[in-house]
Amino acid sequence: MDLNEALAQLAELEKKLYAYQAASSSLYLDATTTAPRDTAEGRGVALGVLAGERHKLFASPGTGELLNLLWEKRDGLDRLRFREVKELRRACAQLTRIPPDEYMEYAMLTNEASGVWRRAKEQNDFELFRPVLEKLAAFNIKFAGYYDPSKAPYDALLNEYERGVDMEYLDGFFATLRARIVPLLQAVMAKEAPDDSFLRRHYPIEAQRKFSAYLMEVLGLDRAHCAIGETEHPYTLEFNNKDVRITTRYDEDNLAFSMYSVVHEGGHAKYELGVCDEVQYTCLAGGVSMGVHESQSRFYENLIGRSRPFIEAIFPKMRELFPEQLADVTAEQFHRAVNKVRPSLIRTEADELTYCLHIMVRYEIEKRLIGGTLAVKDVPELWNRLYKEYLGVDVPCGREGCLQDSHWSGGDFGYFPSYALGSAYAAQMLKNMEADMDVWGPVSRGDLSGVSAWLGEKVHKFGGLLEPAGVVKNACGQFDPTVFADYLEKKYSALYGL
Amino acid sequence: MDLNEALAQLAELEKKLYAYQAASSSLYLDATTTAPRDTAEGRGVALGVLAGERHKLFASPGTGELLNLLWEKRDGLDRLRFREVKELRRACAQLTRIPPDEYMEYAMLTNEASGVWRRAKEQNDFELFRPVLEKLAAFNIKFAGYYDPSKAPYDALLNEYERGVDMEYLDGFFATLRARIVPLLQAVMAKEAPDDSFLRRHYPIEAQRKFSAYLMEVLGLDRAHCAIGETEHPYTLEFNNKDVRITTRYDEDNLAFSMYSVVHEGGHAKYELGVCDEVQYTCLAGGVSMGVHESQSRFYENLIGRSRPFIEAIFPKMRELFPEQLADVTAEQFHRAVNKVRPSLIRTEADELTYCLHIMVRYEIEKRLIGGTLAVKDVPELWNRLYKEYLGVDVPCGREGCLQDSHWSGGDFGYFPSYALGSAYAAQMLKNMEADMDVWGPVSRGDLSGVSAWLGEKVHKFGGLLEPAGVVKNACGQFDPTVFADYLEKKYSALYGL
Repeated sequence: MDLNEALAQLAELEKKLYAYQAASSSLYLDATTTAPRDTAEGRGVALGVLAGERHKLFASPGTGELLNLLWEKRDGLDRLRFREVKELRRACAQLTRIPPDEYMEYAMLTNEASGVWRRAKEQNDFELFRPVLEKLAAFNIKFAGYYDPSKAPYDALLNEYERGVDMEYLDGFFATLRARIVPLLQAVMAKEAPDDSFLRRHYPIEAQRKFSAYLMEVLGLDRAHCAIGETEHPYTLEFNNKDVRITTRYDEDNLAFSMYSVVHEGGHAKYELGVCDEVQYTCLAGGVSMGVHESQSRFYENLIGRSRPFIEAIFPKMRELFPEQLADVTAEQFHRAVNKVRPSLIRTEADELTYCLHIMVRYEIEKRLIGGTLAVKDVPELWNRLYKEYLGVDVPCGREGCLQDSHWSGGDFGYFPSYALGSAYAAQMLKNMEADMDVWGPVSRGDLSGVSAWLGEKVHKFGGLLEPAGVVKNACGQFDPTVFADYLEKKYSALYGL
Repeated sequence: MDLNEALAQLAELEKKLYAYQAASSSLYLDATTTAPRDTAEGRGVALGVLAGERHKLFASPGTGELLNLLWEKRDGLDRLRFREVKELRRACAQLTRIPPDEYMEYAMLTNEASGVWRRAKEQNDFELFRPVLEKLAAFNIKFAGYYDPSKAPYDALLNEYERGVDMEYLDGFFATLRARIVPLLQAVMAKEAPDDSFLRRHYPIEAQRKFSAYLMEVLGLDRAHCAIGETEHPYTLEFNNKDVRITTRYDEDNLAFSMYSVVHEGGHAKYELGVCDEVQYTCLAGGVSMGVHESQSRFYENLIGRSRPFIEAIFPKMRELFPEQLADVTAEQFHRAVNKVRPSLIRTEADELTYCLHIMVRYEIEKRLIGGTLAVKDVPELWNRLYKEYLGVDVPCGREGCLQDSHWSGGDFGYFPSYALGSAYAAQMLKNMEADMDVWGPVSRGDLSGVSAWLGEKVHKFGGLLEPAGVVKNACGQFDPTVFADYLEKKYSALYGL
């Protein structure tokens, strides 16, 4: 087979993988937005087959031979194809270590688990979720051994979400943050809290939907390529760089929840929509890693969305949409309210300062659970104890405790730390962006095009063309978590007059 | 290979076909309900691959050998497996006659075409749609030759939608109806028309959504297994007998449109939800043919939904949901209004009496288009001429003319006649149902359980276990289109005092 024929076969292989992924995504999107309640069975059959076909494709001798042939001829490949073959060979190796029947069983389990988790959360009943969580954890421990038997299981899983990251690295990262956040939090809590009661007035869902549309416009999200849906737990789903979906959840008695969900998921969507055309329908399409992805969502949510200039820019529109609710509120008050620090129970509603503490709880639990030193039945107890220890709050029930997140029901163990890494990357990106251009002048006029262009050039366009560490280096320089700590100190000192 | 192993392989093959179908359905559902506008490209890639994989599965020598082996051992198969193998062999033969590249190209074309058709309809511009319609017609003429080169192309296509039906049969069927409908229509039009202006008062969409939910409840559609969405053109989509979707479109100035869309699609959904468990995830799952399917939707829409007892039963709820709009309207007036006869432009808004005339226009056009005696560019002219001739109305523009239906954009030529056949089957089913039980007493109390049980036993449960003609025989006895003509005569004579 000559190189051209091999490249044609590679393109066909990638299109097939894209199709299976798009099909699974579509079924997932449907399941979480519009599917009737008791329909998991048939979807499980379909998802199981699709996962099995994908697995078979990776495991087929033909695929291995094709990739080996292309690897031998790698000197003749351009940068894109070189990266593509390298990543595919890695993915292939990882996946083929999992026996096909286990892989299919796992796909069907995660499909079932999301329904069980939803019911357990609704009914506030951890026992309902426990048996599937046990199976999910057991599968992940086994898979970790397949991925890299030389690593501790949790290290092997972490490496799948953010290559190069392990427990040693994260223990240090979190220790640095904890040492800076805890005294800062204490100083903040000693001050008078701003009034944020107006955020929990009655905000009708229809007006909130209009607000979402406005926020997407300000973010520069093209609605011809990006739709918004409604789900229990907001997420972003990408089909390709011309078809991205975000979701939110509306709470009539809480304006900030959906507002910052939209800005957060909008940040993810900006990334996906900004990836270059060249890598579409290949394994290099889409954001490069969870951590880099979170850097983008958090950049928009916290660094832009919770900044004074941004609030000033959008406040007139908010007053228009919610004239009665915000009649007695100024932009300054709103800015202080959405930056109010308050140790709380729910991660997705946490303020920027305590957020990392929520992550540390999950990190500590996952570390033990996957490490085999914590039984699933003991998760609620440890969860509650750590929330008391790190955040000083008492967890009253599972719904506000260890049943709050969807991640574990989707089989995602090792994902949470990337949220904290993303926050830290984002702070360093902002520092560099401020050195390159006037960030806040345009933002205060509601013009995010400069921000968008900078992130597009430094992060978005590459997709998987660079390694995660390469993208971080490109946008952050040498990564240094103290930049994030400095940012938090500066921000909250100003807000609370420390 | 022994029989048990062959049956296990058959089940695996069927599951795979189910998965590809479910995946394509999910992508279609998404495309028509929530996908952003400019996203057809990526979906086309995925749908093309899925169609190609399905095609490859059918065309693979292994599949042929498996089906041949099972066919040789057919004496050892139970009724279900026997039918399954027979139908799969037929489907396999039909599909493998289409070359894989043409099949994939066609899948991508129909995906593209639905977007083009939507824009053409929006912009009222047939020229925009013409090039894709030309391609679609050319593909279908070619495919007809693959299906059965001994038949005229249109006969070959008709046979795919309703096995055994051809132009000779339909020419006779439509002639019978025309001979009875035309004088009846003239008699009706000579009488004073009932007032139906109140149907076009302002009916807020939110209240109409509640009305849809109520109608689904009355029909006995379990919302845990049947969801409702909103699309330009209402349709029913089934994943399996526990997961069915219907869609509707709300017009704030027209109560009847969505009302009867919901009851119509609800009839399709009842059928799909009523198919027995044994045939799920096989080629025998789902309704057996387009004609039988339409008999169910029309049974609920027209024979039940437009009956006086049904209107009496639901009228109190309507008065509750639309108190001002219906303040001066009685159930009797409502019943007369939704049965008002008026030759019109739009098929989906046509009354029960003139509906078949709309179908005859499409039948005549398809017959010539696929027969090669009509060029696509001349479709609007012939459409407009036939509407004038059959219905006496002038077509002012494409949107209200030949751009109104989605069918051709989906590549469906030969589908329309099944609508008329379905109406005729339904009338004969009602006659037999009335002989078996008290239909109207329970219906007048809003209790459709008896109707549902009768149709469940006579039609729904079989799925594809019987041939279409077998189901028709089971529920209708010997098919006789004059029963439908008698029904129309009796109904409209009473309504219009003829």
